[in-house]
Amino acid sequence: MFPFRVLNQAAIQENLDMRSCLEIVERAYTLKDEQKATLFPMVFHEFEPGVADMDIKSGHLAGANIFGLKLVSWFGENPAKGLPAIIGTVMVLDSKTGAPIGIMSGEAITLMRTGAAAGVGAKQFARADSKVLLSVGSGHLGPYHILATLMVLENIEKVLVYNPRSVERATAFCTTIREKCLGLLAPYRSDQEFYDEMVRRIHVPFEVVQDIALATAEADVINTATPSKQALIKKEWVKAGTHITCLGADMEGKQELDEHIYANAKVFVDDVTQAVNVGETEIPIKKGTIQKDALIEIGSVIRGRKPSRTSDHDITVFDSTGIALQDLLTAESILKEAEKNGSGVVADI
Amino acid sequence: MFPFRVLNQAAIQENLDMRSCLEIVERAYTLKDEQKATLFPMVFHEFEPGVADMDIKSGHLAGANIFGLKLVSWFGENPAKGLPAIIGTVMVLDSKTGAPIGIMSGEAITLMRTGAAAGVGAKQFARADSKVLLSVGSGHLGPYHILATLMVLENIEKVLVYNPRSVERATAFCTTIREKCLGLLAPYRSDQEFYDEMVRRIHVPFEVVQDIALATAEADVINTATPSKQALIKKEWVKAGTHITCLGADMEGKQELDEHIYANAKVFVDDVTQAVNVGETEIPIKKGTIQKDALIEIGSVIRGRKPSRTSDHDITVFDSTGIALQDLLTAESILKEAEKNGSGVVADI
Repeated sequence: MFPFRVLNQAAIQENLDMRSCLEIVERAYTLKDEQKATLFPMVFHEFEPGVADMDIKSGHLAGANIFGLKLVSWFGENPAKGLPAIIGTVMVLDSKTGAPIGIMSGEAITLMRTGAAAGVGAKQFARADSKVLLSVGSGHLGPYHILATLMVLENIEKVLVYNPRSVERATAFCTTIREKCLGLLAPYRSDQEFYDEMVRRIHVPFEVVQDIALATAEADVINTATPSKQALIKKEWVKAGTHITCLGADMEGKQELDEHIYANAKVFVDDVTQAVNVGETEIPIKKGTIQKDALIEIGSVIRGRKPSRTSDHDITVFDSTGIALQDLLTAESILKEAEKNGSGVVADI
Repeated sequence: MFPFRVLNQAAIQENLDMRSCLEIVERAYTLKDEQKATLFPMVFHEFEPGVADMDIKSGHLAGANIFGLKLVSWFGENPAKGLPAIIGTVMVLDSKTGAPIGIMSGEAITLMRTGAAAGVGAKQFARADSKVLLSVGSGHLGPYHILATLMVLENIEKVLVYNPRSVERATAFCTTIREKCLGLLAPYRSDQEFYDEMVRRIHVPFEVVQDIALATAEADVINTATPSKQALIKKEWVKAGTHITCLGADMEGKQELDEHIYANAKVFVDDVTQAVNVGETEIPIKKGTIQKDALIEIGSVIRGRKPSRTSDHDITVFDSTGIALQDLLTAESILKEAEKNGSGVVADI
């Protein structure tokens, strides 16, 4: 019999903000590099190929005394039934006793921690004077990775938005992006200086682009967040000094970058095993464009054990596959806040 | 946002009974054999070898439109803190939408479905005229596997109880076993005939035994349920016609039977892969006493595709490693009952 907190998306949104999430994700990477965090093998099952699947990512954050899992269901036919296609559930347990602590909806956590990963990547690998951000993809994740990137890069002057399949969607995205970012900034209203600065940053121009070659050539920072299974960005378009964070590839066969980009880029990953198996890095490894030894985990850069970019001319890639440790540490923070605020439902389990 | 039921042990006990659980476990085995059920790979992690570990068993029961997992923590130092050493949590999701349905404490489910497995094994493999049941082990699981076995074998005249490490524990076990079985029979008070018959059966003599060789030679049915890592029962003690259900081995290295027993026994398992990797069957396979091809899944016997024992002289072994499908189908049944009875807490997730 243990007290056990159940939190839905609304409760999560009340208890998590992007600035905190940037710190949390950075800490998750750090704990992993300090070997105070362990990823367990991922379980993946296709109910029906291309229609419905699920995965269970789990791990142990010894540095935070928690372990647990995130189960994510993808059911492509759900929207036709009025349900979300992706449904996630995060369960957190105490690693001193094995007792369950809480369970919560995984969607808001996934969006926040994935967006935050782009922010942490930009902070570590992008040039501080980066001026142009290109978002490849204009979906649900957009406001999160764009806001996180704007939070860490103060000199961004313009955001380009490219949707490989629909210019209309990119246009619609640009008309609502500020409102969505403002929603994510709501927790900072009491911190006037930070709030005002962030409001200023989200008021840079957002421009729909149709020519991805030109847009890539203009960009200093590129975040890719599509479900693509073929390269969208070619090597010859990427200028020296560019940083690219790949958020889209999270299962075998997904790809957003021309694998040749890997040939002369410095490549950083959240987890080598996951990157090689299911990340953007899968194809370049399989095609021999890069060797596993050359991959650097971001945690080692954050901790100063390995160098980030060494010149303004380096092209850097951060393959953010999304690791359970991000979810678990984010969930733990939410549970602590929720306890303070009395959010959610406490049941006995 | 989905309604999500949280059930603790008390709520589970109110909504699950052994007679139903025998049917549920039989159905889980059947669905597996019909290929309407799939086990996913097991995740196992040792926090500290010999001190604390956890495993995640998961699977899909297409035949019941559910999938999910059971996470079991074993923290050997918990009892010193006033906490149970084993803590389990079962999560059930809808396999038509991927939405979570409920979560519940796993201990009561594990005890019931593991005990029920012994009952289903005895029903399928033991001689119907079996008179002497030997319980090797006298722990928490005892009342469950003994009651389940007594439910399916009407001619049992005596139960022998052996504890390999402590005759005192076996003695204490025998003084409380009837009371515990009576507790499990409480749901049948309204079914007078069945209740009376079960009360009669649990009033057979329970005898502590110290000489396991003699006890084995006397037994018609043996249930082993210890955490042993060495053989407790030797081949030369086992008489023709005996059935043995092994409940104890659930991780690499565990063993309760002399592997030579496998040399001339018919061996049945719940799941071949799990039996070979973590079950009683692991050692005999590794030592070459039996070949994987010779193993028969119980579901195929229940469905009549494969024969059970073919004579009263056969020695049969059922290696019940415990599969996620038992937990999930049991959990689903509990959730349905709980919905009728309004048990537990319904939260929004």
